[in-house]
Amino acid sequence: MAYPALPMTYLVSDNTAGIHPQVLAAIADANQGHTPSYGTDPLTARAETLIRTHFTPAAETVFAVTGTAANVIALAALLRPYETALCAESAHIAADECAAPERFTGARLTIVPTADGRLTPDQVTAFARAGDPPHSPIPRAVSIAQPTELGTVYSIAELRAIAATAREHGLRLHIDGARLANAAAALGTGLAQAATGADIVSLGGTKNGALAADAVIFLDPALAGPRRHIQKQAMQLLSKGRFVAAQFVALLDGELWLTNAAHANLMAGRVAEVIAGVPGASIALPVRTNAVFATLPGDSGPPRRFMTSFDTTQGDVDAFARVLHTAFIG
Amino acid sequence: MAYPALPMTYLVSDNTAGIHPQVLAAIADANQGHTPSYGTDPLTARAETLIRTHFTPAAETVFAVTGTAANVIALAALLRPYETALCAESAHIAADECAAPERFTGARLTIVPTADGRLTPDQVTAFARAGDPPHSPIPRAVSIAQPTELGTVYSIAELRAIAATAREHGLRLHIDGARLANAAAALGTGLAQAATGADIVSLGGTKNGALAADAVIFLDPALAGPRRHIQKQAMQLLSKGRFVAAQFVALLDGELWLTNAAHANLMAGRVAEVIAGVPGASIALPVRTNAVFATLPGDSGPPRRFMTSFDTTQGDVDAFARVLHTAFIG
Amino acid sequence: MAYPALPMTYLVSDNTAGIHPQVLAAIADANQGHTPSYGTDPLTARAETLIRTHFTPAAETVFAVTGTAANVIALAALLRPYETALCAESAHIAADECAAPERFTGARLTIVPTADGRLTPDQVTAFARAGDPPHSPIPRAVSIAQPTELGTVYSIAELRAIAATAREHGLRLHIDGARLANAAAALGTGLAQAATGADIVSLGGTKNGALAADAVIFLDPALAGPRRHIQKQAMQLLSKGRFVAAQFVALLDGELWLTNAAHANLMAGRVAEVIAGVPGASIALPVRTNAVFATLPGDSGPPRRFMTSFDTTQGDVDAFARVLHTAFIG
Amino acid sequence: MAYPALPMTYLVSDNTAGIHPQVLAAIADANQGHTPSYGTDPLTARAETLIRTHFTPAAETVFAVTGTAANVIALAALLRPYETALCAESAHIAADECAAPERFTGARLTIVPTADGRLTPDQVTAFARAGDPPHSPIPRAVSIAQPTELGTVYSIAELRAIAATAREHGLRLHIDGARLANAAAALGTGLAQAATGADIVSLGGTKNGALAADAVIFLDPALAGPRRHIQKQAMQLLSKGRFVAAQFVALLDGELWLTNAAHANLMAGRVAEVIAGVPGASIALPVRTNAVFATLPGDSGPPRRFMTSFDTTQGDVDAFARVLHTAFIG
Repeated sequence: MAYPALPMTYLVSDNTAGIHPQVLAAIADANQGHTPSYGTDPLTARAETLIRTHFTPAAETVFAVTGTAANVIALAALLRPYETALCAESAHIAADECAAPERFTGARLTIVPTADGRLTPDQVTAFARAGDPPHSPIPRAVSIAQPTELGTVYSIAELRAIAATAREHGLRLHIDGARLANAAAALGTGLAQAATGADIVSLGGTKNGALAADAVIFLDPALAGPRRHIQKQAMQLLSKGRFVAAQFVALLDGELWLTNAAHANLMAGRVAEVIAGVPGASIALPVRTNAVFATLPGDSGPPRRFMTSFDTTQGDVDAFARVLHTAFIG
Repeated sequence: MAYPALPMTYLVSDNTAGIHPQVLAAIADANQGHTPSYGTDPLTARAETLIRTHFTPAAETVFAVTGTAANVIALAALLRPYETALCAESAHIAADECAAPERFTGARLTIVPTADGRLTPDQVTAFARAGDPPHSPIPRAVSIAQPTELGTVYSIAELRAIAATAREHGLRLHIDGARLANAAAALGTGLAQAATGADIVSLGGTKNGALAADAVIFLDPALAGPRRHIQKQAMQLLSKGRFVAAQFVALLDGELWLTNAAHANLMAGRVAEVIAGVPGASIALPVRTNAVFATLPGDSGPPRRFMTSFDTTQGDVDAFARVLHTAFIG
Repeated sequence: MAYPALPMTYLVSDNTAGIHPQVLAAIADANQGHTPSYGTDPLTARAETLIRTHFTPAAETVFAVTGTAANVIALAALLRPYETALCAESAHIAADECAAPERFTGARLTIVPTADGRLTPDQVTAFARAGDPPHSPIPRAVSIAQPTELGTVYSIAELRAIAATAREHGLRLHIDGARLANAAAALGTGLAQAATGADIVSLGGTKNGALAADAVIFLDPALAGPRRHIQKQAMQLLSKGRFVAAQFVALLDGELWLTNAAHANLMAGRVAEVIAGVPGASIALPVRTNAVFATLPGDSGPPRRFMTSFDTTQGDVDAFARVLHTAFIG
Repeated sequence: MAYPALPMTYLVSDNTAGIHPQVLAAIADANQGHTPSYGTDPLTARAETLIRTHFTPAAETVFAVTGTAANVIALAALLRPYETALCAESAHIAADECAAPERFTGARLTIVPTADGRLTPDQVTAFARAGDPPHSPIPRAVSIAQPTELGTVYSIAELRAIAATAREHGLRLHIDGARLANAAAALGTGLAQAATGADIVSLGGTKNGALAADAVIFLDPALAGPRRHIQKQAMQLLSKGRFVAAQFVALLDGELWLTNAAHANLMAGRVAEVIAGVPGASIALPVRTNAVFATLPGDSGPPRRFMTSFDTTQGDVDAFARVLHTAFIG
């Protein structure tokens, strides 16, 4: 690498960012007096209601503080140890969670390669039909990420197709929405539409401007019964739960979720333009959300990832452009 | 219950409190620009250094956001599934963590009754000698809480005796210090002295004024190797880890930890005096920290618990006194 | 101990015995040509049918080769990791299975002391009512042993009472029948009656004259769905399953199960008489099955256990009597 | 399929066969009087000694009764839940054990495709180098099958290369030798040579003529410490262990293991010749052991598997030939 590391740190990930000021203010506002602990406080109830407003009146929610935890809680609600969930090789649950799903659930993930991070209905069908009981685990669920970890986005029609195929085979659908707001912004829909067809959604707040806030949303209440016990066993039942709820209230009670996501997406588009202007560089995957996968001149191996966040500025993009210019154009 | 519920909520638990203003300010101060994620930021390094200063230069630390998680990480570092740890029936790991230790480690806890929450060296010896391998799991560790969940405190001599007995039998010692600051304040020692003999300490920040902050401190570095993988699998590796570290920096860089704990202990003493003044009421266990176990006139069953916190005021105590007076004296 | 060890080995346990000749012959008879593997052979079907005849037409069965495995499969069918089963401190699942239930299910056992190995309806009620969700696991099942590991036997009325209390609280009942034949012989009933009220029974063949044969019998077919997957994950799906089935066919197709058990019980009665005849010796618990708990002159600590088996002879009892006479009477 | 199913059953698998008469006789011979239980009997000691003679004087062994259990015990001795083992997609542990390894160990298997069931040193190196700690589990072990489930055999040089590469990266080597005797017969070596480089071997007796007998052989005694506790937790510690040991004594005390394996291999060669004589049929993989993978005229999809066993006769091969002739030549 010929270019200096410093300004690049602004594009390393959307979780190197801090807390959006409105979210921090909401945490401070929640710091009034004593309230019941362990998620039985009024602010938690309000966050749950807001999620019902965004998704469906029957939704049940538990909160968590890492995306890994949200996914693991969802999988634990879906899988018994002799069952299995399909996911993409690039999925966070497969690539970035240190086998936490396996350790907590005892079940195996069925991990398959994809072209661009998106599973296809044909892969779901093949998964459902495979196996030789009882020598292989029972296919029970499909887990997709929206957007994917490669920045690609399922269209509503694609979600419908995946969900219909899953349902046809008796499979449940989990959507890892660690960046669901970015997908919704890209699709021009609400959060619920961006998660069309899901039985359980992991909704991420952290990459959307929170300190640490994730929600596991049970859209099918039939799955929700043990949610609080699983949350507790997953070590995610915070005593001062109001401060997690406050973050979601800040994001979801109004359009902060959308403003933040749309801004990050916009900045990613500009980063992509900057890269595309470098002779010999190329954008590897369509840029729909806040991730840009690209190869720079001289690169070998897999594309590099550049990410924007709610607080990426035009100045950051300009600085990045200067770095690339110095390194590759000169 | 003849007395109204409202003022009592101030004494329900030390986790119904909010965040100490200095801790909240530290979170806000940490919210500057981008920093590396997943615990590789400078503030996390500073918190680790502070913990080394308080405990021992060789200490290794990972952070968590629930006391359950801190305990489970510690136990996971100590136990293989065919090993077992001794603990008191009243221990948080036995009574309040929904079997999260068993689910995560696969190992059994050996749970024994105690007089006042404290294990004795004789119980440790009996534990070490019991069992018929391979028909029973191998005794590997002892887990005690300092202070106990009943508010009692091990003296330094008692800790030394437990630790010596454990060592003699090849057992490791874990101390659940969810309220270690309160024990240190009661003993008039530093945090390390209050955890004398431990191989691993769970140090709680939340009940000491934090939003959500726990540390798993490996005093014996030989146990620390897999700590970050276990933290990740325990779903406690926050991406924006600086905001957990900031809380510990606020508490430990100076004497806020002590001020908060000593105040809560002081208020508990006053609550106990108020109760002791009610004819027919009695204090069930010595009041050393911020918990008061007492029976009120007409009570049957186990004693009630009253807890103070860093923000309990003399006004709260006075209000409590009025409630008791109205109810029982009239 | 003043008396020589050799003849005592005949009374050490009922699993130091070998295979009953008829069971061994059945294994040899089954060794004809090729048959489908993994429990899909005709002999396995015949063993399942025999079990239905003994228990109930709707019973579903999977086979195992250790009592531990049968119990673990039963518990795995009953418990999710956030649920718990009640059992006696003396229960095999608590005292002799090296925490295999916890490791395989991830759930905690709730272990309570008893007077003589038998749980009471009051203990079941207390178990059902305890706990503070989601801080403690959900009471889901009761596991009792018939006979108990202390040789005591639940009467049919006692079983009905336990089962009714369990049902009243929404709890399932597992019966560990590693020696169910001995209980049935003692009660003068069939195997099903000796397991009155159970939802799942672990039926032991090994101590009844088999090489290694245990059955997990799902009396409530609603619980039986995943039985073969659990059996496979519990590493109990033998490829040459016909040879396990053959053992149960030998025991259950006729009265060999009863003959063997009744004989062992009879011999235990005589062993007890021999002991009772030693001045200063005493029988610690009523002798109902094939276990005798007794203290001999000079003993301190818990009583000794003497066990008879299907092949204990009057000569063994006489030899034992001579040893005791030499040692204590002289 | 145009040809009748009956004679084909003789070639369905090597576990549809029964027990070799000498093994059955050994079980009967072991049925004399009482012996200590749970693997502390003299016959178990003798089987362990025989295994040391075949492998290495320092070998430690525990016995099991399914190949799945032997593999799971080996993996449990090698892996902590945050570690991972590499294996081929076709491996029994990946394809046929219903995720029992994951359930019991909590760890993830890293499953990769292969050309013919054999892993390569390059795949081992790639595995060792992959991952981003602590976001992915630590590479700890490589598990290969000898022969593979596709009937292919690693040469001694290939084993040396795999083992050297593993060692270079600090990885342990497990060999699933469910049919190790067949590999040894194919290679013209002893059992130990056929498992060159292994730290732990799962040695299968069942497909070699036993009723149900597998051994987990710890060639590196440093790994063997917890073997009996793991065996117990894996529900494989049979009380009447002498009858498992007797099977291994029958196979290993002399050349029965080799005679049986060599015969099965020979018959597989003849089956392959028969198939190769059918116009339009083809042998898919080199036939080295007792498995033949082939496509018959009109087949689509993956090749069919035909297996021989210790008791396959020339008459069976001739009958198979007639069936193929009738179906495809006419």
